[in-house]
Order: sequence, then C-alpha cells, then structure tokens
Amino acid sequence: MRVELKRAIYEANDRLAASIHEDLRRRGIFTVNILGSPGAGKTSLITRLAGVLEGPLAVIEGDVASDIDTQALRALGIKAWQIETGGDCHLNAPMIEAILKQMDVPDGAWLFIENIGNLICPAEFVLGEDMKLVVSSAAEGHDKPRKYPIIFNKSAACVLTKLDLAAAVGFDEAAFRSGLGLVAPGIPLLALNGRTGEGAEELGAWLKAARSQVS
Amino acid sequence: MRVELKRAIYEANDRLAASIHEDLRRRGIFTVNILGSPGAGKTSLITRLAGVLEGPLAVIEGDVASDIDTQALRALGIKAWQIETGGDCHLNAPMIEAILKQMDVPDGAWLFIENIGNLICPAEFVLGEDMKLVVSSAAEGHDKPRKYPIIFNKSAACVLTKLDLAAAVGFDEAAFRSGLGLVAPGIPLLALNGRTGEGAEELGAWLKAARSQVS
Repeated sequence: MRVELKRAIYEANDRLAASIHEDLRRRGIFTVNILGSPGAGKTSLITRLAGVLEGPLAVIEGDVASDIDTQALRALGIKAWQIETGGDCHLNAPMIEAILKQMDVPDGAWLFIENIGNLICPAEFVLGEDMKLVVSSAAEGHDKPRKYPIIFNKSAACVLTKLDLAAAVGFDEAAFRSGLGLVAPGIPLLALNGRTGEGAEELGAWLKAARSQVS
Repeated sequence: MRVELKRAIYEANDRLAASIHEDLRRRGIFTVNILGSPGAGKTSLITRLAGVLEGPLAVIEGDVASDIDTQALRALGIKAWQIETGGDCHLNAPMIEAILKQMDVPDGAWLFIENIGNLICPAEFVLGEDMKLVVSSAAEGHDKPRKYPIIFNKSAACVLTKLDLAAAVGFDEAAFRSGLGLVAPGIPLLALNGRTGEGAEELGAWLKAARSQVS
C-alpha cells in the first residue's frame, strides 16, 4: 500500500514536471535544479554564476524555513522568489507550478532552482528542469558519492566547492573522484570557490555549452 | 489521505519506539540518536566519545549506501553494526528493532545510533532513544538553526564541529548562537574538534551528567 502510494505520488509529480518543462522550453527558459547538502555552497554558486552568465536570470529558493538566501540574492540585485516548505524535505512539481505563477521569468532566461539542503529526497522529484547539478563541499568529506549515490548519479555535473579547506579537513580528491566515477560514470567534475569566484568562468562556460546542446 | 497515512506511520513508529526504549532502559542501556548533515562529523564524534566514556559501547550506523563508517569504527575496535537503508532518508523504529536482534549490546552500555546524514527527515522518527544530539559543522554556515529549526529544537544538545575552519568559511559563532537560541531556547551548545579530540572530555562529562539524571 505504501509502495503503491509512493509510486502514485512520483507519477503525478513526473506528469506535472513534464508539463512545466514543456512550457519553460517553449519560452526558451533553461532550468537548472541545484542539489546539495546544507551548507554545500548552493547559493554562492548561483551568485557566482549570475556574475558570468549573460542574459536574464531568475532564482527559486527552496528552504524548510526562513528566506535568508532569497534576501541575500535580492540584496545583490538577483531576482529571487522563496518557497518555504515548512518541513518538507524536497521541492516538488506542484510547488514549482505555484510559484512560477507569481514570477515574471523573462523568455530566454536562466532559471535556477535551489532545492532543499538534502542529499537524498530531492533526487526523487523532478521539477521540470533541463538538468540537475549536485554541489558537494570538500568539508563534507570525500566519501559522499559512495554514501549518497543516487543524487550524484542523477546529476548532469558535480561541482566541488571549498577545496581551499581540503588540507584542513583531510579531503582526498582522488578518493572523491574514484567514488564519483563508481556511482556516476563519466559525470563531469568542476571546481568552484564560492568565496573568491575561482572556477566560476569555467562553470559558466560549461553550462552555456550544455544549454546550447539542448536548445 | 496522504496526511492520514503519514500520521498512521508516525503513530506506529512511535509505539514501537516506546517499546524499544522500555526494553533498553530495563537493561540499563543509554541510547543517543545522533543527527546531522552529511559530513557534519557524526562518526568522529562517536569515535572521540568512545575514547572518554567508561563502560561498554555499541554503535548502530545508518547510511543510505555503503558501510564505510562501520568499517572505520570496527578498525578502531568499536563494536558497530550497519543499517543500509538503500534510499530511505532516515532510520525508523522497525529498523532499530531488527538490528538489535542481531546485536549483543551488553547491559549498562552506551548505545549510539548514527542516523542518516540529513537535517530534516530524521527529526520526525523516534527510535527508542533517551536523547537526540544534533551535530553541526562550522563549514555548513551559521544560518543552519534558522534554516532547519525542527531538528535543533528536538535535540537535547547541539555539538558544533570544525570550528578551526570558522575564519576560512566566514562562520559567525554569535549568529549561530542567536539562531539556535531562537529555535531551541536553552539548548546547551558544546564544541568538538573531531580531528584533535579537543572538547571530547567536556562532551563526555556532559553526557554522563545527562545520563545520571535519567537513570
């Protein structure tokens, strides 16, 4: 009974996500679903990309509680809208459908959806995105791909952040790469320092190339 | 319908957890449910506590995938058993009931349950524990209590790790304390450096005092 209900929830979500995706694509909007642990650096990544990507950009911020990140993005002049789930551990397609009605995302924009900080549940719910990006911080440790394989496997690329802390926390990049290759063979790994912006140009270029392949 | 099913799942879990707790208490076992993000330092905390607590100690390791932490603990001579959820984002009472049947936890032991790395879902499922401890790393940022209030609110104490990275990541301890006080008034905050062991004696003393109050 539980399994059947779960399947029904996933199927309803998938159908709605497909319709959201179709609508966004028709308007030339490229949508990225950004995943990662609490504090991995998802908001910093969006801020840095805003500095290197051309064209309009809109952000949906997902949080269990608070609008801290939305306020921080708005203070930088980035158009951001908040979804506060009040306890839910992931965003879902109905939440995206509802907030898109309040937003005025320009045609041709980049749309970034910052999912709830969680390496598990958000992997199971598509939101109408063109791709998922998973952000992993060196401070979390090199074993994360092996411990949370599904989210890495479903992502189009992995962004490794806070590499300046690698020595201090004993982060072994080769072990991270090896685990990542095991659970997500062939996935590109890009580095970003959210505090200095190092790596943002390369990440932006990679995203533009990926977008040009689907548009 | 979904809400009712959720309530039924919680209620069944709570009933079983109460019976597990009663059984553990009868055997003089003190049980701590350890919560935190991926990479917060939950396993290091257990390792450090094993070095300062007297008496037998047993560990249940929860992971979505892999038995990396269980192997690491066993290599240090700590008795550990693995629960691999295969995708589930939290441990629940039936999982604990099942694994306890395979374990030989001595009477009077400390029992540490390392929950899945996740700041959301594990807060909703009691496992039969005497207390919850939430572990939060400075590398995750000082906004975590305000963003994930429930898990901090339900914990008996908060352990702040990786404070040696505070300057490098711009962690503001006063802001962390202020957020924590807002969502979990009066909760004790203890610091632990998992790599050096600094703070382990104080944390062990705090736990022993807490245990003496319930036993």
